[in-house]
Amino acid sequence: ANFVLLPGDGIGPEIVQQARLVLESVAKLFGHEFSFASHMIGGIAIDTCGDPLPPETIEACRAADAILLGAVGGPKWDDPSAKTRPEAGLLKIRKELGLFANLRPIKLFKELVDASPLKREIIEGTDILFLRELTGGIYFGPSGRTGSGDTESAFQSMVYSVPEVERIVRLAAKAAQGRSGRLTSVDKANVLEPSRLWRQVAARVMAEEFPDVQYDVVLVDSMAMHLINRPKDFDVVVTGNMFGDILTDEASMLPGSLGMLPSASLGDGGPGLYEPIHGSAPDIAGKSIANPLATILAAAMMLRHSLDMQPEADAIEAAVGRVLADGLRTMDIARGADSIGTEAMGAAVIERLS
Amino acid sequence: ANFVLLPGDGIGPEIVQQARLVLESVAKLFGHEFSFASHMIGGIAIDTCGDPLPPETIEACRAADAILLGAVGGPKWDDPSAKTRPEAGLLKIRKELGLFANLRPIKLFKELVDASPLKREIIEGTDILFLRELTGGIYFGPSGRTGSGDTESAFQSMVYSVPEVERIVRLAAKAAQGRSGRLTSVDKANVLEPSRLWRQVAARVMAEEFPDVQYDVVLVDSMAMHLINRPKDFDVVVTGNMFGDILTDEASMLPGSLGMLPSASLGDGGPGLYEPIHGSAPDIAGKSIANPLATILAAAMMLRHSLDMQPEADAIEAAVGRVLADGLRTMDIARGADSIGTEAMGAAVIERLS
Ligand SMILES: CC(C)[C@H](C(=O)O)[C@@H](O)C(=O)O
Ligand SMILES: CC(C)[C@H](C(=O)O)[C@@H](O)C(=O)O
Repeated sequence: ANFVLLPGDGIGPEIVQQARLVLESVAKLFGHEFSFASHMIGGIAIDTCGDPLPPETIEACRAADAILLGAVGGPKWDDPSAKTRPEAGLLKIRKELGLFANLRPIKLFKELVDASPLKREIIEGTDILFLRELTGGIYFGPSGRTGSGDTESAFQSMVYSVPEVERIVRLAAKAAQGRSGRLTSVDKANVLEPSRLWRQVAARVMAEEFPDVQYDVVLVDSMAMHLINRPKDFDVVVTGNMFGDILTDEASMLPGSLGMLPSASLGDGGPGLYEPIHGSAPDIAGKSIANPLATILAAAMMLRHSLDMQPEADAIEAAVGRVLADGLRTMDIARGADSIGTEAMGAAVIERLS
Repeated sequence: ANFVLLPGDGIGPEIVQQARLVLESVAKLFGHEFSFASHMIGGIAIDTCGDPLPPETIEACRAADAILLGAVGGPKWDDPSAKTRPEAGLLKIRKELGLFANLRPIKLFKELVDASPLKREIIEGTDILFLRELTGGIYFGPSGRTGSGDTESAFQSMVYSVPEVERIVRLAAKAAQGRSGRLTSVDKANVLEPSRLWRQVAARVMAEEFPDVQYDVVLVDSMAMHLINRPKDFDVVVTGNMFGDILTDEASMLPGSLGMLPSASLGDGGPGLYEPIHGSAPDIAGKSIANPLATILAAAMMLRHSLDMQPEADAIEAAVGRVLADGLRTMDIARGADSIGTEAMGAAVIERLS
């Protein structure tokens, strides 16, 4: 299999390097040929060639079996008057590769329950799979400015079409069939026309194609409450791009260990893109203290979803579980106790692969 | 002073009645003349005259000094094919009265800390004032459908103009001056054009008119995380309509006692509208077990903001504090212990007024 690595900015290169070492060990252990090619994205790509997603990177990604991304962005590229931004690279790669579904499992590691800002009785047992629509909605709607000076105004349109809703709902419903068979769709149908279309289409798809899946709808504002109050009540959750951005970040705080959560962005057939959900953490970049586990778990998702290598993915996840059970912690999850560095954590996972 | 009461649906009538009794006691105690007129809004208005906001209601509201609302909506009016919905009444009254600013204080009652789903050390000391823009943004942007059948799509546009941003940011900055002098503006400027306008205008207003206020900006997805992880770090938070809808509902879960939180919707000069932030709770309507305290606290906000009656507002809030200190609880905040009903709770507040 041939993988493209997009280390990106900040701690990106450090954590992607550890994931690569884990993948290389898996290849040896299971007798696979994995090849890796690194390409530029984000701030480093802007600095080098003025483009957050250079054409070479896109071409390499298209030809790959799967893509592993570190993180993009940092204060260096935050100037609001800059011509382009690292995030533009991220939005563009999603669109170019047709990665319409962002999968974010929110799972609690039992060893880390106490890291949660929520009380144990609320959070224990939480296991949600979010599917966020990633190439539509207000993110990619028509936008612009009108008027000028004191009367200037700006607009950007949320747009959803029937096929866009159908394909993400189908994917979510299939995911629900593989889990507990429950799906929740989140919208704002009491206010937004695209949400009303979303709700109609989702109801039809569910009734016609997935009568076996237990299906319900929740308004986005209510969902923002439920996630804090009764996160255990949800299994698979599907929603649009903007609501997904907010809700998945909210949900990512529940386990209290952002450094542990991976995500996958999938399209129709082409290569998927896998990444940790945390950012580039410029404040700790280069210090070898970043937590590589989310990226390592993203690599496991990559083997599972893009290469159908279930035992290999299981092996990585089990090794991460063992590392935690053995009490090894990077600084972000150590809660003040002793911690180990990025490389030591990567090595600890590799030692426990089997 | 003359008040319009809009009891609305579900538990609305029960809780508004208790707030009215509290206001009548305050009037006696402080020597004011308060008059009350009840009008219809929401589901009950649809049932009675087919319109969730009848013209008589709007006229009465315009002529009032302030408006106290219970709650609107319920499963009875949830049919997606219905011609109109209770919520339409709410959106329309905001627009008709120019109520562009929704104020939501998120405060923890120290007696209820244990009701929070968050750990005590995270939540204790939280005291945030949200200002949500309420008459603009995607809520009121152009919307519609194009195409049909398999290619149908729906759109709704987020629009913000310079004056819309200026007025809400000014109000928020003034509120910050009256508190700790810190203001956070929340947007999604890395993706949305209206957010970029919002960020520019807010920065200019703050620099030119409020150099004394400590000002920063946070992305909406990050804010959804911070609220769970470090709610104490925020003082006044200003944001647009859609983001405000989601974030204020998320924040309302932090104290773990939705039944305690009031909100105010204010315009330029005209009457303000005050309400509890919880919904119409149709499941417990008519049972005399609803918690009237949020509505009573909304009445206090009403006296403070619309009538400049500070001592009167303080008296109500102090009485609510005493009720809690004395261990009185309605069912929703009793955590399984003994509880009292809606009327008993209203009476308990009145007894403690002074
Ligand atoms: C960086 C930003 C454009 C991006 C988004 O909003 O999609 C990020 O928040 C994410 O969720 O991947
Ligand atoms: C009922 C609904 C239209 C309303 C809104 O979205 O504004 C409600 O959620 C609120 O926050 O007051």
